[in-house]
Amino acid sequence: MLSQNNLKLIRQLRQKKYREKTGLFIAEGEKIVTEALQQEQVKVKKLFFTDAHSPKLLKIGPDVDFFEVTEQEMKQISQLETPSTLLAVIQKPLTVFDDAVFKETVLAFDFIQDPGNLGTIIRTADWFGIHYIVCSRNSVDVYNQKVVQASMGAIFRTQVFFVDLKDFLTKARLLKTPVFGTFLSGENIYSVENSLHGIFLFGNESKGISPTLEAMVNKKITIPNFSRNENKTESLNIASSVAVICSEISRR
Amino acid sequence: MLSQNNLKLIRQLRQKKYREKTGLFIAEGEKIVTEALQQEQVKVKKLFFTDAHSPKLLKIGPDVDFFEVTEQEMKQISQLETPSTLLAVIQKPLTVFDDAVFKETVLAFDFIQDPGNLGTIIRTADWFGIHYIVCSRNSVDVYNQKVVQASMGAIFRTQVFFVDLKDFLTKARLLKTPVFGTFLSGENIYSVENSLHGIFLFGNESKGISPTLEAMVNKKITIPNFSRNENKTESLNIASSVAVICSEISRR
Repeated sequence: MLSQNNLKLIRQLRQKKYREKTGLFIAEGEKIVTEALQQEQVKVKKLFFTDAHSPKLLKIGPDVDFFEVTEQEMKQISQLETPSTLLAVIQKPLTVFDDAVFKETVLAFDFIQDPGNLGTIIRTADWFGIHYIVCSRNSVDVYNQKVVQASMGAIFRTQVFFVDLKDFLTKARLLKTPVFGTFLSGENIYSVENSLHGIFLFGNESKGISPTLEAMVNKKITIPNFSRNENKTESLNIASSVAVICSEISRR
Repeated sequence: MLSQNNLKLIRQLRQKKYREKTGLFIAEGEKIVTEALQQEQVKVKKLFFTDAHSPKLLKIGPDVDFFEVTEQEMKQISQLETPSTLLAVIQKPLTVFDDAVFKETVLAFDFIQDPGNLGTIIRTADWFGIHYIVCSRNSVDVYNQKVVQASMGAIFRTQVFFVDLKDFLTKARLLKTPVFGTFLSGENIYSVENSLHGIFLFGNESKGISPTLEAMVNKKITIPNFSRNENKTESLNIASSVAVICSEISRR
């Protein structure tokens, strides 16, 4: 049964302010929720399932409150066009930022706005073995449900930090970690001689990298445009750019 | 002014059956509509603008009917969250399929469903100089407005064909055009020795390539998973996979 309190909680968690207040977020769908339940470090607090799923079939820890709900009730709490059979309320993990991050490959985002883009990027990063993602504080919330869904569970396997990017890049400079910035003009990513290790900075979907951060980039890189058309496509989608850059980093 | 007839037409064009019946589709937004007006081969039939835009500033051919509408009227016809100042009704181009396609690099899609994915893929293809895209007939319509928007105008610079993929691949075999299929296991894309020229086949977002088409692939290729996590991300987003494959094709 779906209580009024749970209905209210789940609806509130659609808003960032309630996610911040409670430290909780929502994940929906069989694949992602099953994965959340399987991973020890992911703390599922509440689980809602329609009768299609017996909780016996799922590995549910003793700390999980679980509730069977009707399909009608699932519709009330789901944000998917086609509601799934599982919805979980999950505790945000504690992410502790330490300087070890500066020794790893990091994807950094200046004001990324689209939740689908961020989720797809997290999925891509995990595929290519990149564990750390850093976003400016004005970026879309990583626990926005559209981000969670688009990440296809990769959100549980990567670390996403929200920081003051200016401070972060200042620290990188201090520690001599190279900062690569992706621009529409720069050194051809396929012929960059430097080892592709360090921080890879990407800009906002329409505005690119802000001038303040641009000044902190060690090397500007670009994905060359191969179009033969007179009117060229002006830019790649940010998630597509990230896929190309991650591919180049990993291939080498 | 927005007439009842135009309001009705634009609303009908949200549905594929009316786009097929009339041979028309919708594009919205300053960038994409301005681009449509600039390109000779794109036939804009009707143009709706709010008073923010003087039609004198736009290069409007004699065949374009144009209508100044209020912001309120634009809201009625727009499908964007934030309506733009321009909306165009455009005639679908005549795409004539000929065998020259088999000499070019082609991206082929078996039942691609998500309009955002297809639009992003068209944008990526154009960036990497790939002109031909072939989709199975059960794929999402390329003139779906979400596809048009996500393509960022690249839809005007590429050719997208809807065909019976089985017939298409049979013909490819006959003409000795190699067919590469993207799978979760196959030859590592980074170390494939063949020249990366031919048809690149991608499967449905959740079901992959159908068994019938799988049997017609000459070489299975894969983007290796670099994740060190025990629970790995199971797949890449299809638009991200396309970006990686296009990058590899172009880099070589």
